[in-house]
Amino acid sequence: MVNPTTAGKFIVIEGLEGAGKSSAIALVREFLTQLNDAEPVCTREPGGTPTAEKIRALVKNVSDDDPLCDEAECLLMYAARAQLVANVIKPALANGQWVLGDRHNLSSLAYQGGGRGLLPLVQAVSRATLGDFAPDLTLYLDIPPQLGLTRAADRGALDRIEQQAIDFFERARETYLTLANADENIEIIDASQPMAKVHQDILAVLKSRLTA
Amino acid sequence: MVNPTTAGKFIVIEGLEGAGKSSAIALVREFLTQLNDAEPVCTREPGGTPTAEKIRALVKNVSDDDPLCDEAECLLMYAARAQLVANVIKPALANGQWVLGDRHNLSSLAYQGGGRGLLPLVQAVSRATLGDFAPDLTLYLDIPPQLGLTRAADRGALDRIEQQAIDFFERARETYLTLANADENIEIIDASQPMAKVHQDILAVLKSRLTA
Repeated sequence: MVNPTTAGKFIVIEGLEGAGKSSAIALVREFLTQLNDAEPVCTREPGGTPTAEKIRALVKNVSDDDPLCDEAECLLMYAARAQLVANVIKPALANGQWVLGDRHNLSSLAYQGGGRGLLPLVQAVSRATLGDFAPDLTLYLDIPPQLGLTRAADRGALDRIEQQAIDFFERARETYLTLANADENIEIIDASQPMAKVHQDILAVLKSRLTA
Repeated sequence: MVNPTTAGKFIVIEGLEGAGKSSAIALVREFLTQLNDAEPVCTREPGGTPTAEKIRALVKNVSDDDPLCDEAECLLMYAARAQLVANVIKPALANGQWVLGDRHNLSSLAYQGGGRGLLPLVQAVSRATLGDFAPDLTLYLDIPPQLGLTRAADRGALDRIEQQAIDFFERARETYLTLANADENIEIIDASQPMAKVHQDILAVLKSRLTA
């Protein structure tokens, strides 16, 4: 069990649409609750504070006569993230709580950076906003976009970002993989496997990285 | 008269609260209308597009239990600006129209950069967002903060930013002056003078800079 007087850890689940993030989050949440004898603080991005949720709604519901330019989309994502980090994540960690994030910075790097071809912009804004703040561990659920989108379509309508062309998701996946391979705090999980095997791999990583 | 087939110019009015921006804008608007035989497109920042106005409302009405962190405030200002530049200012200029701005990038550099001490963050976000896009001419109405705030208070309630301590405005003014002195496209107008003299100085600058 974690010493409650020490700072908590920030664990993030990342992946393309249909990679199985929701069930992975439920699994990790259960694991962390048992590990720490306390529920982690769960966040989703963009969102997670009153202001950040307003920003999320703004990004998701843009009027056709004022299409969101790439720069504005990127900056809004980071405004929501800055707010969440300052007012939820950092206070929780300082308080000894663990935080479980449904997406974080890697999503912006992959989607806006890789997907839209704005990596220099996103990296500059990321550095300016977050400095060296980063998750202690990120599980990236890797899946071929076509398979993920088929799964996502099966569960209901796709939103604006999900309706992008398959090329967009291919570029996002490449960026996810490149960044994951360059960062020892990001673990790649093969999410194209049957769910039982995916969950087994996730638990193996959690045990190896978070328990003595 | 300007050749309507050429690109328009972007003129911006800047200054602390109470510097006399509104009456200066009316004056410049009239001057440009006569010069070009056409009304300029008038913008205000933050705002000026449906999404940017939503962002403005968000910044001005933050809930007490989720105070806006400095980084989020800066990013929201630039998200609104990116949207305005992409969907209003650049299309108008490309169409041969002139644009008259009530504040632009210099406000963020002065208020968030100088006032809040975040100049490296603001400059990084500014570069990442705007690249080398900048006004053709900025008139900075310079006024000692105490005089400006007295004037602003006389015309009604002060909003959140206007309620900051006087030190904040002193730092913003210093930044305005430093940046204005380093940029030949920014003209400093002594706005502590009687209004008739301020307007005379503005017209002299406009004639010298915008007419052959």
